[in-house]
Formats: sequence, structure tokens, C-alpha cells
Amino acid sequence: MPEPHLLTSGLVDVALGENVKIVEPCNIYGCRLGDDVFIGPFVEIQKNTVIGARTKVQSHSFICEYVTIGEDCFIGHGVMFTNDLFKNGHPDPNPDHWGRAQIGDHVAIGSNATLLPVTICSGAVIGAGSVVTQNITEKAIYAGNPARKIRVLD
Amino acid sequence: MPEPHLLTSGLVDVALGENVKIVEPCNIYGCRLGDDVFIGPFVEIQKNTVIGARTKVQSHSFICEYVTIGEDCFIGHGVMFTNDLFKNGHPDPNPDHWGRAQIGDHVAIGSNATLLPVTICSGAVIGAGSVVTQNITEKAIYAGNPARKIRVLD
Amino acid sequence: MPEPHLLTSGLVDVALGENVKIVEPCNIYGCRLGDDVFIGPFVEIQKNTVIGARTKVQSHSFICEYVTIGEDCFIGHGVMFTNDLFKNGHPDPNPDHWGRAQIGDHVAIGSNATLLPVTICSGAVIGAGSVVTQNITEKAIYAGNPARKIRVLD
Repeated sequence: MPEPHLLTSGLVDVALGENVKIVEPCNIYGCRLGDDVFIGPFVEIQKNTVIGARTKVQSHSFICEYVTIGEDCFIGHGVMFTNDLFKNGHPDPNPDHWGRAQIGDHVAIGSNATLLPVTICSGAVIGAGSVVTQNITEKAIYAGNPARKIRVLD
Repeated sequence: MPEPHLLTSGLVDVALGENVKIVEPCNIYGCRLGDDVFIGPFVEIQKNTVIGARTKVQSHSFICEYVTIGEDCFIGHGVMFTNDLFKNGHPDPNPDHWGRAQIGDHVAIGSNATLLPVTICSGAVIGAGSVVTQNITEKAIYAGNPARKIRVLD
Repeated sequence: MPEPHLLTSGLVDVALGENVKIVEPCNIYGCRLGDDVFIGPFVEIQKNTVIGARTKVQSHSFICEYVTIGEDCFIGHGVMFTNDLFKNGHPDPNPDHWGRAQIGDHVAIGSNATLLPVTICSGAVIGAGSVVTQNITEKAIYAGNPARKIRVLD
């Protein structure tokens, strides 16, 4: 029987700010993590991502290529970002065609939320288990599949 | 470049019953696991939680602070519990303000379900992929986002 | 205090094709992985499963017993398959009663999707965060909870 190619999760080519805390095992590569960022266990963060200072990424979350997250955000547990919308019915091999997600500052994303490649304004809250399919431009709480505004925040 | 603080997942300060089985890697701390509990791989269980005898917690699940799960329950794969509702638009630093989840006995929770801090009565079934936003007081099958009753159980 | 039985994730009893790539940690046992399959980190694959050549299973996904996946598929991150529907209000101990999932070729399943034990035809696309509750027999894009057809593919 053929042998598999076994690769090992870890930290590779990560630009780190001061006082970053990371709980292993994790699989993090080619990204930038700001000062005082916290990364929980069982997290994967792909290349071409930026995570701002003091943002927390909780266990089981996945941050894909071309996601930029601001400062002081809370990314819950099991949150999944996406970039490729399979518009032509299959994964698109050209990264130039993928969407870019841009998350503002002080954004809180509940556990098990799914995010299509959208823009979310600073201060917005995404409820647990939501699926965010459109840009969010108003500071409010959003929930559901697809996520809809349920309460405006002051 | 600064060095990160690397922490390692593991078992810390866990009160264990007899014959508990745990598949590593896991990140489990400050909780109580009853007799014959099974914990699958890639599971995080936070402090101030109790899991009753013979309950199974499958891979990829996350059990947050202030969750109490009864006996003989089945917690599927990728199930996420929550406690903080971000009511004021951001994570609340005071744990006294967080909700408490109380799960009865013989409860079955399907994979990828998300649970807000609710009470679920004994014998209830939560379908896979559901988001439970309200207390469940009737023994029935619930599914959807938000989860609604779809069939009463005898 | 009693000692727990600690088991370790790994590869056990896996039939491997040529050039399979696996990122550890993972928990994979009793299954068949075709040529050029890729398995990301934090993945669990149970026994009695088959994954066809060139299919990619991304991080955090869980493939349960009695799932057959075709060739050239893309299984996103955090995708959860299921087999037991808890029809009688609790997990069914008899595997003969569980459903079987059959996924065709060139199927793309978005991240955080949940699949009940269904058949999905070749070329179908399942949107991120969807919950697939019924068989899919038409090549199209499906999304939502429950998943519904949103666009036919050529």
C-alpha cells in the first residue's frame, strides 16, 4: 500500500505582534496577527489574512484567504469564513475571482456562524449559527439563515 | 519579531468519574465528567461545566462555561454551546450576566447544532444544523433556524 | 480520582491510494481514500466510508460511517455528515437502521454545511451553512436551512 504524505499543523511564516497567545494544536500560515491577539485551539488561519490587535479567535474557527479582521473583535467558536462562491458550479482555481471579507473593529461574531465574503461594519453583532450572505453596513444585531437585522444598536 | 506565547491543549483540573474515555487532542479544563462519559477528538470543554454519566460528546464540539448536561445524552459532532448573548453589542466581561444552559437526561443533539443558553427538557431531540434560541419544555423533535417543533415524541 | 482512558487520534486501518496528503492531527479509521485525496487538519473520518480520487476534505470536517463520496469533490471546512436520524427519540444502536449518504462526482459542499443521510447527484453545489435534508437529483446550487434550489447549473 502507498504511504501517505503526512503534513503537520503548526505556525509557519506568521508575522506576529507583541504578546500574541496561541493554543496549540493550530494550523496558521502566511498571515499577520496584531498585538495581544488570542487564538484558541483547533483553529486554521490561511495566508493573505490580517487579524487586528486585541481580537480573539476562539476554538474551531477557520479563517480563509483574503479575510481582514479589525481590532478588538470577538470571533466565536466554530466560525467559518469563505471566499469562493462556486459561481460556475465548482471551486474556482483563480484566487483573483474569490471574494474578499473585510470585518471592521469591535465586531462580535457568534459561534457556528458562517460568513460569505462580505463587508461587516464596525460594531456589528452576528448571532450564533447565522449565515451572513450580504454586506452589513449598519451597527446592529443580525441573526438567522440568511442573517437579517433583528435589533439596532446605539 | 516577538515570540508568541504558545499554550498546549490538554486536560487540566478535571474531576473524573470512573471509566471516562477521551480521544486526544482535546482542551478540557475545570469541569466535571461523570462515569462512563465519552469525549471525541478536537473537543473543548470550559470550566464550570458538568457532564452527566454515560453522556457522549462527539468530535469538534464546544461546551462553554455554565453548561450542565444530564445523563445518557448524545451531543453530536460540531455542536456549539453559547453563554454570552452580546446584548449590549459586545462581549460582556461579567460572567454573572451570561446565560446558563441546562440540558436534561437522554437528550440527543444533532451535529452542527448551535445552542443559545437555554433549558432543554429530558428526552428532547434537536435536529442536525439547528439553532436553538428558546427553552424547550416538551419532549419532541425540534429542527431549523430558529429551531421549531416538528414532531412530538411518545 | 480515577484515571481516564486516553486514546490518541491518528490513522488506523486506512486503505490509501497513491499520493494522498493528510494534515495532522486527524482521526481517520477504517475507510478508503482514493488517489490524490487531500485531507485538511482536525478532520475525523469514520469507518465504512469511501472517498474518491482527487476529492478534497477541508479542515474541521466530519465524515461519519456509511458515507460514500465520489471523485473530484470539494468538501469545505466544518462540513458535518450524519447517519442516525434519532427517529425514535434517541440514538439508534443498530447501524442497519442508519441512513447512507451517497455523494456523486464533482460535488462542491460549502463550509459549515450539515448533511442528513441523502443522495446528492454529480455536479451539485451546496452553499455554505446549508442544511441538506432531502435527496438532490438536479445539478444546481442549493442553499438555506433546509436547503432549497436557488439556481440551476448548465
